Amino acid sequence: MQTLDLSLAQDVLAAQPFSRLLGARMVSFGDGEAVLELDVRDDLRQQHGFVHGGVLSYLADNALTFAAGAAAGANLVTSGLSIDYLRPATGRTLRAHARVVRAGRTRVVCRCDISTVDDAGTETLCAVAQGTIAVV
Amino acid sequence: MQTLDLSLAQDVLAAQPFSRLLGARMVSFGDGEAVLELDVRDDLRQQHGFVHGGVLSYLADNALTFAAGAAAGANLVTSGLSIDYLRPATGRTLRAHARVVRAGRTRVVCRCDISTVDDAGTETLCAVAQGTIAVV
Amino acid sequence: MQTLDLSLAQDVLAAQPFSRLLGARMVSFGDGEAVLELDVRDDLRQQHGFVHGGVLSYLADNALTFAAGAAAGANLVTSGLSIDYLRPATGRTLRAHARVVRAGRTRVVCRCDISTVDDAGTETLCAVAQGTIAVV
Amino acid sequence: MQTLDLSLAQDVLAAQPFSRLLGARMVSFGDGEAVLELDVRDDLRQQHGFVHGGVLSYLADNALTFAAGAAAGANLVTSGLSIDYLRPATGRTLRAHARVVRAGRTRVVCRCDISTVDDAGTETLCAVAQGTIAVV
Repeated sequence: MQTLDLSLAQDVLAAQPFSRLLGARMVSFGDGEAVLELDVRDDLRQQHGFVHGGVLSYLADNALTFAAGAAAGANLVTSGLSIDYLRPATGRTLRAHARVVRAGRTRVVCRCDISTVDDAGTETLCAVAQGTIAVV
Repeated sequence: MQTLDLSLAQDVLAAQPFSRLLGARMVSFGDGEAVLELDVRDDLRQQHGFVHGGVLSYLADNALTFAAGAAAGANLVTSGLSIDYLRPATGRTLRAHARVVRAGRTRVVCRCDISTVDDAGTETLCAVAQGTIAVV
Repeated sequence: MQTLDLSLAQDVLAAQPFSRLLGARMVSFGDGEAVLELDVRDDLRQQHGFVHGGVLSYLADNALTFAAGAAAGANLVTSGLSIDYLRPATGRTLRAHARVVRAGRTRVVCRCDISTVDDAGTETLCAVAQGTIAVV
Repeated sequence: MQTLDLSLAQDVLAAQPFSRLLGARMVSFGDGEAVLELDVRDDLRQQHGFVHGGVLSYLADNALTFAAGAAAGANLVTSGLSIDYLRPATGRTLRAHARVVRAGRTRVVCRCDISTVDDAGTETLCAVAQGTIAVV
């Protein structure tokens, strides 16, 4: 099992072209947790001006998997996830904070909170997710 | 309730900057079904060269909601979804085919199949999703 | 890998005390599909007289796992599932029909339709589910 | 909106024949939280002697909905839920602790932790769930 630290996790994120396209950055990583952030910009929106749900589900997918990686190493495959949207996402920055709930030998289950952060730094929860990552 | 047809649904899709960024197109719409396609390109990939799971979850989110719109009109909010990934997504094109399972007065439940399509036109299922869309 | 047929699957079901308590029966099994039925009776209801959602989620859980068993043998652990309720469940009998979507080496993904059947034999879909079963 | 307290919530639970069949009791209720317990007995098991997953999904369904009721009153319909199983459930008692994540005007999203409790009172998490309850 390859052990990951923040620097290595940032390298993995940087090796994901889709994460670069969206502008995601890894701001915290370790002990079964991962925090991804992403600045809101116009081409991440849907037709009403809110952040597209697909951006939130991308963040959930990636943060859940990185959190699993912070407990179980790099050889992982995302098995699936559920996401519930709570309110329209606006604000300056999106933050996805995922935590391992249980790291088994073959499966890691994680939860993720996705918030918007406004200019004053206030977080507002806008989606919650839960997912399973397979250890390969 | 605003009734949508393919042309109007394409206009809604074109009004989503994030869908333009990813290059999604609406190829079929009506009777409680919607089909979105998207050409695979390098900046949609993750670190191993496969399409990022976040692209698949975006397609699921959007196709599920458009399918609901094909039954219940345009005033919808995506409530949540579950996606299970089946195999790494490669190929030339991604296709998301969503269908309404039940259109109630306040909630529409849909399912979605997400496939990759290779150069010969062969479809390979790579993810399945299920979601609920609220009628507002 | 132990191969299951209808008779063996019925034996497994009969070996589940909780399935006996609820009165579930296996009416079809094979080729990656399983159909469970259960007669509605008063002690399966919630406070408004409808079948309790927990009965539907039990049926989904069990049918999904048996369908996986019809493709991948008996050494399975249910990993997780999502269920969306469509309408209150009434009627005489509940029927859960699960099918394998993809049987991989380590994971099997299935879908399940749960219907009520009235005295005339008419099926009404009341819940849909999707789940992942791990091969151990 | 009818306001619920612990005593009234216990009355609602007692009015669910299926909850009586399984032996569920409401041990805490209020402020957007609900805790259900249930003593493990032989007829709640599956073929390997563990508690059947359907019992855990029943607990998740019910605890999620009661937690929503602790924030949004009694006129609720469970929309759907996702559950991930973490380990086989054994022990003397099952405890499901659900909390509201976000109570909107038309939808309440909750999370639930399901644990087994052994004779010494030690809790072991065996499943996590997330669900949406519609306000009607």
